Amino acid sequence: MGRVTARRRVLRIRDGVPGHRSDTLAAEEPMEIRVGGRALTITMRTPGSDFDLAVGFLVSEGVVHGPDEVLGIRYCAGATADDGNTYNIVDVVLAPGVRLPDVSLERNFYTTSSCGLCGKASLDAVRTTQHWSVAGDDTEIDSEVLFTLPDRLRAAQRVFDSTGGLHAAGLFTTDGEMLCLREDVGRHNAVDKVVGHALQEGLLPLRGTVLMVSGRASFELVQKAAMAGIPVLAAVSAPSSLAVDLADETGMTLVGFLRGRSANVYTGAERLRAGAPVA
Amino acid sequence: MGRVTARRRVLRIRDGVPGHRSDTLAAEEPMEIRVGGRALTITMRTPGSDFDLAVGFLVSEGVVHGPDEVLGIRYCAGATADDGNTYNIVDVVLAPGVRLPDVSLERNFYTTSSCGLCGKASLDAVRTTQHWSVAGDDTEIDSEVLFTLPDRLRAAQRVFDSTGGLHAAGLFTTDGEMLCLREDVGRHNAVDKVVGHALQEGLLPLRGTVLMVSGRASFELVQKAAMAGIPVLAAVSAPSSLAVDLADETGMTLVGFLRGRSANVYTGAERLRAGAPVA
Repeated sequence: MGRVTARRRVLRIRDGVPGHRSDTLAAEEPMEIRVGGRALTITMRTPGSDFDLAVGFLVSEGVVHGPDEVLGIRYCAGATADDGNTYNIVDVVLAPGVRLPDVSLERNFYTTSSCGLCGKASLDAVRTTQHWSVAGDDTEIDSEVLFTLPDRLRAAQRVFDSTGGLHAAGLFTTDGEMLCLREDVGRHNAVDKVVGHALQEGLLPLRGTVLMVSGRASFELVQKAAMAGIPVLAAVSAPSSLAVDLADETGMTLVGFLRGRSANVYTGAERLRAGAPVA
Repeated sequence: MGRVTARRRVLRIRDGVPGHRSDTLAAEEPMEIRVGGRALTITMRTPGSDFDLAVGFLVSEGVVHGPDEVLGIRYCAGATADDGNTYNIVDVVLAPGVRLPDVSLERNFYTTSSCGLCGKASLDAVRTTQHWSVAGDDTEIDSEVLFTLPDRLRAAQRVFDSTGGLHAAGLFTTDGEMLCLREDVGRHNAVDKVVGHALQEGLLPLRGTVLMVSGRASFELVQKAAMAGIPVLAAVSAPSSLAVDLADETGMTLVGFLRGRSANVYTGAERLRAGAPVA
């Protein structure tokens, strides 16, 4: 099984003064996701929670929606020269009747849309593949609870402090209780891992939850949250224009630049209420 | 033509106090890259330098190596309902004899390797597709010049300060002179844009240059730098384990956590020399 971190020798210069030491790095390895033995995609990810990543990716792509639709998940064997397992190929067996995804998911995601390739086409594609509506979720969250989430995410991150190289995604209740934390060199993988965990726990759609991510909020992250039915997405840093447009379109609350007791609420501000500071 | 930024109305909370204002966001739109009319890939990118992005991607994938191999680049027309151009589909016409890439580049990149899917396979795949060797590049850079690059990158970034949402990639000489700057919501796109610009200027391989990136250094960024013949890659933040392995394998100098007069040199430290502080 892959390791989450790796150590390498490094020349460390501090204030212009060089010295040698050992440094901890975030591990990165390719992982192939197969469905019924057929290769679907390859992603560069940090090893760990690989099964979560595989099924979470399938949720994001609109292939599966509940734990009953997944019959099994396993590592494919015997890939290295010495017949060892690389633990980098995961095969998902779907239940009978669950539609197999097309081989080139990403392409179809955009090109099945009626208009040409534009931001609107991307929004339309998400709407047509969305299994649950986020718009009807009347979750409310106290802004003072929201302000506590970045610190809670950081406190729970086991790896970040040693490598400085991992993105984190944390799923919270509106009381600020952490339900699940996953880390990865790729922020999209961290979110897929959270969603895949939730799928296997039978928690989809994730009504009444807040997804907190360590970096920026791209279109892709909003799309993944929408496909899992998450009503509130909060990011430490900036969203893109299309991320805001998709959050608006799906009825999601999108929060950016969440730092200290400050934040930008781009969409769905009606879910926020002001309250007494949390002790 | 797409815009680099977009404005949206936002609920801004500062120290717990809410207020409304207009906020500037980094634009994000899908872009399809075609070769000879055939769709190759779709990437979510910030509009601007789209032709650079298209041909830079082809350099990264080992398809083209010089400006003569590209006969033309154009936007495909008439994609929206009202017959307007979305400026989100770019077609590259290759010179006769330039081998057309396989449709599923990413898949082949990993799976043509002899061993199974593992980090070593990824390293092997880069080695077999590399057109220029980085190892033989005897570029030297003064560490004091290196320390100035993050500030020079920031100073040159036109968009970051207004959105906080864009990655930057800057190409520098070893004297610290900036040759090219490109920005994007995706760090891999920013690097492809720099490389694509260099291709069109006839600058490949980029011997004697330093590529400075604003975020982390992933395997993918090292791979793109290697394919363009860049001997030194410097990042503001952390590299991954596989990024360090690939830099080591290709003979590249990889610098991380470049902040103030401090840095971690993971590979190729022989290219660094200590010098007098730059005024």
